[in-house]
Amino acid sequence: MTAVIDRAAGASAQSPASGLVCRNCGATYPLGAQHACFECFGPLEVGYDPQRLAAVTRAQIEAGPYSLWRYAGLLPAGHDPATRVDSGTGMTPLIRADRLADRLGFTAPVWVKDDSANPTHSFKDRVVSVAITAARELGFTRIACASTGNLANSVAAHAARIGMESIVFIPSDLESAKVTQTAVYAGTLVAVEGSYDDVNRLCSELSETDEFESTAFVNVNVRPYYAEGSKTLGFEVAEQLGWRLPEQIVAPMASGSLLTKVHKAFKELITTGLVDPADYRVYGAQSAGCSPIATAFAAGSDTVIPVKPTGIAKSLNIGNPADGPYALDAVRSTGGAMAHVDDDEIRDGIQLLAETCGVFAETAGGVTTAVLKKLAESGQLDTSRETVIYNTGDGLKTLDAVSGRVGPTAVIPPTLKGMRGAGLL
Amino acid sequence: MTAVIDRAAGASAQSPASGLVCRNCGATYPLGAQHACFECFGPLEVGYDPQRLAAVTRAQIEAGPYSLWRYAGLLPAGHDPATRVDSGTGMTPLIRADRLADRLGFTAPVWVKDDSANPTHSFKDRVVSVAITAARELGFTRIACASTGNLANSVAAHAARIGMESIVFIPSDLESAKVTQTAVYAGTLVAVEGSYDDVNRLCSELSETDEFESTAFVNVNVRPYYAEGSKTLGFEVAEQLGWRLPEQIVAPMASGSLLTKVHKAFKELITTGLVDPADYRVYGAQSAGCSPIATAFAAGSDTVIPVKPTGIAKSLNIGNPADGPYALDAVRSTGGAMAHVDDDEIRDGIQLLAETCGVFAETAGGVTTAVLKKLAESGQLDTSRETVIYNTGDGLKTLDAVSGRVGPTAVIPPTLKGMRGAGLL
Ligand SMILES: Cc1ncc(COP(=O)(O)O)c(C=O)c1O
Ligand SMILES: Cc1ncc(COP(=O)(O)O)c(C=O)c1O
Ligand SMILES: [Zn+2]
Ligand SMILES: [Zn+2]
Repeated sequence: MTAVIDRAAGASAQSPASGLVCRNCGATYPLGAQHACFECFGPLEVGYDPQRLAAVTRAQIEAGPYSLWRYAGLLPAGHDPATRVDSGTGMTPLIRADRLADRLGFTAPVWVKDDSANPTHSFKDRVVSVAITAARELGFTRIACASTGNLANSVAAHAARIGMESIVFIPSDLESAKVTQTAVYAGTLVAVEGSYDDVNRLCSELSETDEFESTAFVNVNVRPYYAEGSKTLGFEVAEQLGWRLPEQIVAPMASGSLLTKVHKAFKELITTGLVDPADYRVYGAQSAGCSPIATAFAAGSDTVIPVKPTGIAKSLNIGNPADGPYALDAVRSTGGAMAHVDDDEIRDGIQLLAETCGVFAETAGGVTTAVLKKLAESGQLDTSRETVIYNTGDGLKTLDAVSGRVGPTAVIPPTLKGMRGAGLL
Repeated sequence: MTAVIDRAAGASAQSPASGLVCRNCGATYPLGAQHACFECFGPLEVGYDPQRLAAVTRAQIEAGPYSLWRYAGLLPAGHDPATRVDSGTGMTPLIRADRLADRLGFTAPVWVKDDSANPTHSFKDRVVSVAITAARELGFTRIACASTGNLANSVAAHAARIGMESIVFIPSDLESAKVTQTAVYAGTLVAVEGSYDDVNRLCSELSETDEFESTAFVNVNVRPYYAEGSKTLGFEVAEQLGWRLPEQIVAPMASGSLLTKVHKAFKELITTGLVDPADYRVYGAQSAGCSPIATAFAAGSDTVIPVKPTGIAKSLNIGNPADGPYALDAVRSTGGAMAHVDDDEIRDGIQLLAETCGVFAETAGGVTTAVLKKLAESGQLDTSRETVIYNTGDGLKTLDAVSGRVGPTAVIPPTLKGMRGAGLL
């Protein structure tokens, strides 16, 4: 036992990350707090030493902690366990959704990866765990973000946990649950009169000021590290399926980062030999109120035209999605598809997932479930192939979406007579 | 590896439960759906074969699933893994709360066992996992409960997951989040005009009717099984501390069952040899609006006098607590204490936990945190002893408790000028 643990710790002590790589022109840079290419202004991502990645074994991972940090050997931060911010994020349930599969006419298994089980109840705890760990390693003393809500919750909570200063920026019209949950952790919370895209632009400007020199904006200046956290959504599904890839996945898209990184994770698992090579298809889900990526997909275009978002899926309301082109590429290159669903379909999606799986999702999960249904019905998604959908957020944060639709079956006095009066006895 | 797993499966295939035992007169009954003694009407609990319990090893447990079912060898249901309802409940984070410890002047470590990480975000997923598994094993076809909210969420969700019929009874004045979350899973939800105690009485009556013969009320007719689920809150803390007991624990009390069962778990861990014998003190937390157990404690009395509950800690509002006398005994026999806190202290407790630990608790967690503070300040709890507090529920379910107190630091236009105007730049 000791031997196994020692090997794991030894192997993961060295970072597999070799530098930052421009996703546009391929220029490389040393690891650090840089997010755009000096040559072409393209976005940077973390590059890895293939040999160090290939040295990671299933046994090492399985001997690690039961959190996303078991994959440290495939991530750009937290190689020394002492530096990790470990909130218990990750290793969320992968639920076999037989009742959902039946309802939608699947002959193959359907699974729900339920990331509402993370500490602040969204997948954002993954990207924040990695980003805040990297930020500390890089010497930042304050943590910040531009958020559609869930990221705000997670950044403020992680900062409170480790006693780091935080400043969180949100559009002022967010759901009250997300505002209160962020504020209760007692960092600085700035409500910005504008859309998420306005908030994001402001944060980009701020990250260039002297006053914010020691501030890590998780999804701006340390975005390359942040984004890698979403790979764990891919790693975990593969491990939970017994070290193999599912045939189809459906993921929600805001900036398009999550979907892109799950695809990257699957590719890395194949190239490192952690899973056998297999074909898989990536499907992307957006809401009708904000579907710039799905619209480009439908048009057969590579260019994502920014939109002004509307609709109840506020966490996905990014009108100018930074990773849109990469999401299009992930979906097209794997033979998947994209679709968007309107607010009523989103509500139906939330209810369908709750009734069949006992999983109460926020609007983003409603989008994903409704898109699964839509693509299955249209035949673009194959109901004879094993499919994983990602529920990335929690229904308690967007109660208004369904509170007008569901309620008590009956209100009765506390008597058997009351039960009879309601036809329940 | 295979060997270890096989041993675990072999050992847990046989139930360690030997029968039902009256907690009042000691009369014994065969295992089954009985909850009261035919001799004295006292409450029954599960009795175990000491030899079978003693056969359980740390290695077996550690080789089990990363959920409460790893403790199946110490539970009265789910010994055949195929029969388990496993929603991924349990093995929630045990958080080292150094910042909370500092704030309260502790010289010893303080830990938060954060059960808001369970699938429906309260510790009730533990008791429901065990109860619904037992109910299916016992042949029931419908699942029911009387609930102050969290149990309702959990019963409805688990029923939806496995496709079992459910009927849930709640007081009609519960927090809207708990009502909506229950209703969305689409079982039958009955809002009863009255207190929890009225709801509970109605459920007792219903459980005696022919129409409800095939219905398992998790906290009425299968309560002996249900209650054992709370033992896992004790088992997990011991395992997470490296197989040893903490010196002090603080737990919230409604019926008093949870606290009583954590104490039972610690005793079982000692008698089975899974941990070394150690002294520990059990502390109980109630709200001022409903403190029948803490009031009896203060009066030095064995008799719990029922009250009519008021106040914001609705999940703890049980005025006639079934396990009150046993909770008193657990606290007194270990040298602990009880206290109650008012609504403003509860709100302070929620904020204190959020600010120092990044954990957003519901009112019940606010009660527990505020009682920790109160007992530490009064010296009844020893700040030089290692202490574990139980956060049993989620802040998103009782947002109103703090939504009037916290909010954005500033609301600004999306410009650097806006930042300067707010004094943030
Ligand atoms: C619940 C939820 N799901 C999905 C997403 C999409 O994330 P991405 O921007 O990586 O596409 C978000 C983004 O905020 C989110 O909050
Ligand atoms: C969040 C929470 N904590 C604690 C309790 C107390 O449980 P018990 O009745 O076992 O004392 C409850 C009961 O409903 C609860 O909902
Ligand atoms: Zn470039
Ligand atoms: Zn008896």
